[in-house]
Amino acid sequence: MSHPAPKRTRDPARKQAAILTAARAVFAERGYEKATIREIARRAGVTHGLVVLHFATKEQLFATAMTPDQDTLFQGVLDDDIDGLPRRIATSFVHRLESSQGADPVIALIRSAAGDQQAAKALLHTLRRTATDGYAKVLDSPDLAARVDTMGAHLIGVAFSRYVLADGPLAAMPAGELIDRLTATIRTILLN
Amino acid sequence: MSHPAPKRTRDPARKQAAILTAARAVFAERGYEKATIREIARRAGVTHGLVVLHFATKEQLFATAMTPDQDTLFQGVLDDDIDGLPRRIATSFVHRLESSQGADPVIALIRSAAGDQQAAKALLHTLRRTATDGYAKVLDSPDLAARVDTMGAHLIGVAFSRYVLADGPLAAMPAGELIDRLTATIRTILLN
Repeated sequence: MSHPAPKRTRDPARKQAAILTAARAVFAERGYEKATIREIARRAGVTHGLVVLHFATKEQLFATAMTPDQDTLFQGVLDDDIDGLPRRIATSFVHRLESSQGADPVIALIRSAAGDQQAAKALLHTLRRTATDGYAKVLDSPDLAARVDTMGAHLIGVAFSRYVLADGPLAAMPAGELIDRLTATIRTILLN
Repeated sequence: MSHPAPKRTRDPARKQAAILTAARAVFAERGYEKATIREIARRAGVTHGLVVLHFATKEQLFATAMTPDQDTLFQGVLDDDIDGLPRRIATSFVHRLESSQGADPVIALIRSAAGDQQAAKALLHTLRRTATDGYAKVLDSPDLAARVDTMGAHLIGVAFSRYVLADGPLAAMPAGELIDRLTATIRTILLN
């Protein structure tokens, strides 16, 4: 009789990572409401029961999968050269979205807004707090929270046109031109 | 025997207007996919059959109800004072959204993006063309389409945070402060 390959049964950390990767993709593709644990399990190559064992509920899996890793998020973005900050943010955002093939928390946020408002609000809250905490390390304007929220809204809107509906001038634009345009708006929003 | 009140049966234009008003509200609340002709008819106080008689399909009703009236949209916005244009756009946008109680095409667009991509794409296309045609009357930069699309994305993102998820600093901000912030970003996007 055959038995499961040792690698698959003996490496729970690897399975957990596979579940989180699948969750990011499915939540971004379908939005919170339409995503199912069943599909996430299938894509991760694990059982439905194992997903529930590790993450209990869809809500908890969503929260865990969508919480950005602050070190990854801000890698190369935060340093003392404040004048270069807008371009570093723009470059990091565009590269992240272009390389994620749609499996990004911002995409999941947009696709979740029509359905379960609580899940979407919780995610927006997490993204906003992570961003504000990060930028507070290098910027100290008294209205930093409002500036970061406005920048977040700007990036959500750009992701909406370019990556979700994928239609129109913003969607057709080369990445370099988009980075130039975002650099200008982010400078106005964060530094002016 | 009673018969329907004359006003209701003899004023088809009025009924049509009631259907369009109800459609704008329902599409904005539920998004294209979840909105039903049945609910729109109920809110308009007409029969399901009458909606179908006037608008044939949900798709057609969506297109008609969501097409902005260019005169209303640009009233007081387009004039020769270009330096004041960003503030007039910001003021008009914020007042429109604050007074629509959520029944705005931009809100319907955001709530429709998770579901039927075609309906949302068609609406984005209509809004973008209406905006670009309007601004072309007073601005003539060679990349006007890209600028208008970027401004549209910015306003979509702000509507997402303030009016759809209604959470965070952008949602809590007084309208006057929001207008000031939007004036600065719109100036950068359209005129710089």
